Order: sequence, then C-alpha cells, then structure tokens
Amino acid sequence: MKAIVDLCVVPLGVGVSVSEYVAACERVLKEAGLTMQLHAYGTNVEVEWDAIFAAIKRCHETVHAMGAPRISTVIKLGTRVDRDQTMDDKVRSVQTKLR
Amino acid sequence: MKAIVDLCVVPLGVGVSVSEYVAACERVLKEAGLTMQLHAYGTNVEVEWDAIFAAIKRCHETVHAMGAPRISTVIKLGTRVDRDQTMDDKVRSVQTKLR
Amino acid sequence: MKAIVDLCVVPLGVGVSVSEYVAACERVLKEAGLTMQLHAYGTNVEVEWDAIFAAIKRCHETVHAMGAPRISTVIKLGTRVDRDQTMDDKVRSVQTKLR
Amino acid sequence: MKAIVDLCVVPLGVGVSVSEYVAACERVLKEAGLTMQLHAYGTNVEVEWDAIFAAIKRCHETVHAMGAPRISTVIKLGTRVDRDQTMDDKVRSVQTKLR
Repeated sequence: MKAIVDLCVVPLGVGVSVSEYVAACERVLKEAGLTMQLHAYGTNVEVEWDAIFAAIKRCHETVHAMGAPRISTVIKLGTRVDRDQTMDDKVRSVQTKLR
Repeated sequence: MKAIVDLCVVPLGVGVSVSEYVAACERVLKEAGLTMQLHAYGTNVEVEWDAIFAAIKRCHETVHAMGAPRISTVIKLGTRVDRDQTMDDKVRSVQTKLR
Repeated sequence: MKAIVDLCVVPLGVGVSVSEYVAACERVLKEAGLTMQLHAYGTNVEVEWDAIFAAIKRCHETVHAMGAPRISTVIKLGTRVDRDQTMDDKVRSVQTKLR
Repeated sequence: MKAIVDLCVVPLGVGVSVSEYVAACERVLKEAGLTMQLHAYGTNVEVEWDAIFAAIKRCHETVHAMGAPRISTVIKLGTRVDRDQTMDDKVRSVQTKLR
C-alpha cells in the first residue's frame, strides 16, 4: 500500500530554534531513499507504507539522540486504492482547476 | 520507545457518515490489545512504537476493505525519553494546575 | 456555523513541561463559555465558528505572555450542514456500532 | 500577530475526488490577498491572524455551498514573538543546515 504523507516533527525542550532537528529528519528520510519535498510547515513524502513508519521511527530516535527529551509530531497520511496518485499528481490536479 | 498517539481516520468516497468505519478501527485497536480512549475527534492510544503503526496499517486495510476508496488520516504522535508518562498522567498534569 | 474542534497548543522554547500552558488555555476556553472536553492529546470544543477563533487567538496571546516565544498549534475542525451534531453525538455514534 | 499556517480542507460526502473543492479554497485565499503556497498535502499561508480565520471560514462556506455536507479540516498554526519569520525563511533555515 502506497501512502502520501505530510510529516512535521516538533522537538520540545531544546529552545526555540528547531531547524537543526528538522534537517536531521530530512537526512534520515533522504537516506531511506524516499521521494520527498520540504515545505514551510513539514515535509511531504511519497512512500510504501512500511518504509514511512520505519523512517519516522528513525527520525524520533535521531532527534532524541541529539538531545531533545520530548517530541510532538503531526502526520497527515493519505492512502487510496482506486488509482495510483503521486504528490505531483495531487498538486497538478488542483492547479488544473485553477486555470 | 513508548508513544502517546491521537489517531483520526477519515474515509473519503463513502458518504457523509463515517462512524461505521471509525468503529471498525476501534475494533482493530482493541484486538491489538492497546490502551485506548475514544474522544469526539479521534482516539488516543498509549502504545509501544512498533505496535501502533502495525495497528494503523490494519485500520487502513480494514477501512479500504469495507469499501472506502480513499482515506485521509491525521496522527499526533508524542514520545519522550526524560520520563514515563501515561495518557492519564497527561490529563491529570493539566487538571492539577486548574484547581 | 457550528464547529467541533480538536485543539492542541504546543509552546516551544519553554522546556519540556507544557501542562502549565495547556492549563492556561483551558482557562481561556472556559472563560469564553465554551463546551469543552480535555483529553490526553488536546481539548475538544463544541462552538460557534467565530467564538472558537477568538478563543484560540486569546490562547496564543496568553501563552506568549507567559513567556513562550514560539507556539505550534494543531487544530482539527469539523463542520456539517446536513444536521446538528454534538461532541457527545459523535462519540455515541461510534459506541453504538461497537456493541 | 502574524502566523504561518498549513491548511488542509477535506470535504466529505462528495465522492473520492476533492481537487475541485481544494481549488475553490485556493481561490478564496488568493482573493483575500494572502501569501500562499500549495503543496501535496495542503496549502501554506503567511498571514495576519485575523485574516486567516476569516479566510478559512470563507473556505468552509464556499465548500459547503458547492454541495459538501461535511468538512474535516486540519490546520497547523505557528506564531512566534521572538522574531519575524516568513515561510521562505523557514525552508531556507532547514536547507542551510543540509548543505
């Protein structure tokens, strides 16, 4: 089962700047070979189901190992069985209707 | 690693009433033996990391098998390594400060 | 337009314990006279549309005034025009199907 | 108070394809003059607080008027008082640490 995911990892107890931790997660996702797109409030990932949760687990392990005692993550997770759809398809599908 | 999770599974393409699908997910979580609490906009689960994503996968498989072509799920996922904390602890911690 | 809302306010830059800030938001919502229910990963509110966003704004103002330099909030927000539905209705609708 | 928002409006009861409704929300946000960026699982908006909730309300009104009986929206909402930060700043801040 393929999923399109929006992942937003928020470390707590490390001060106000969190970009270093977000960058570490980006590296984890990249090393997992996932198709991904960073945006201003998270990272979109296009992925087989089992791969994404292994990767999110590695993100939490990495961010805790960097010193964050607590993490609050938000995940939006879409699956569909009627047809294949990529992240680009989703964006184009909306943009087409805006013309 | 233990996690506290807020899970909200939203089936698309099955009409306006979704409680039947939410109930099916409740059964999946219960069969997995998870500590859980239904609320008005999701279900909280207290769980070992690997168990929760296996359970969420079964939720998606079940809801698709019931006829939903598309699912958009929202997950809030908290982990902490500084100390153990249950769902009840979290609620009590806030309530204590409200007295 | 009535809405059912799940609100989760996460202050950053204030250390690992956030219950004091969550309790302050509970007080803000209560003072606004809203029907609400605290759970382990947020607070559910049943509310007229305009009231909820005024209240969430006061939550952010309050939490910033308590010293949090940054806040990352997650809101799930449901509206329906086919019929009235309370938070209790939503929970009961699922529970009925579990019997 | 300025906010950076990730908005994801999910209409229920209108079938499996929702891009028409998402496009209508894009138009609402654009007409409100907001700085925005569509991505594969939502739209990021950079905005003054009061403007965003007026716009989200118009999104719900518009999508209901198009025939959707029910909507389940997910909002991530960030504010900070320590310094100004744009959506581009947030992305660049992470990308700088990836080099």
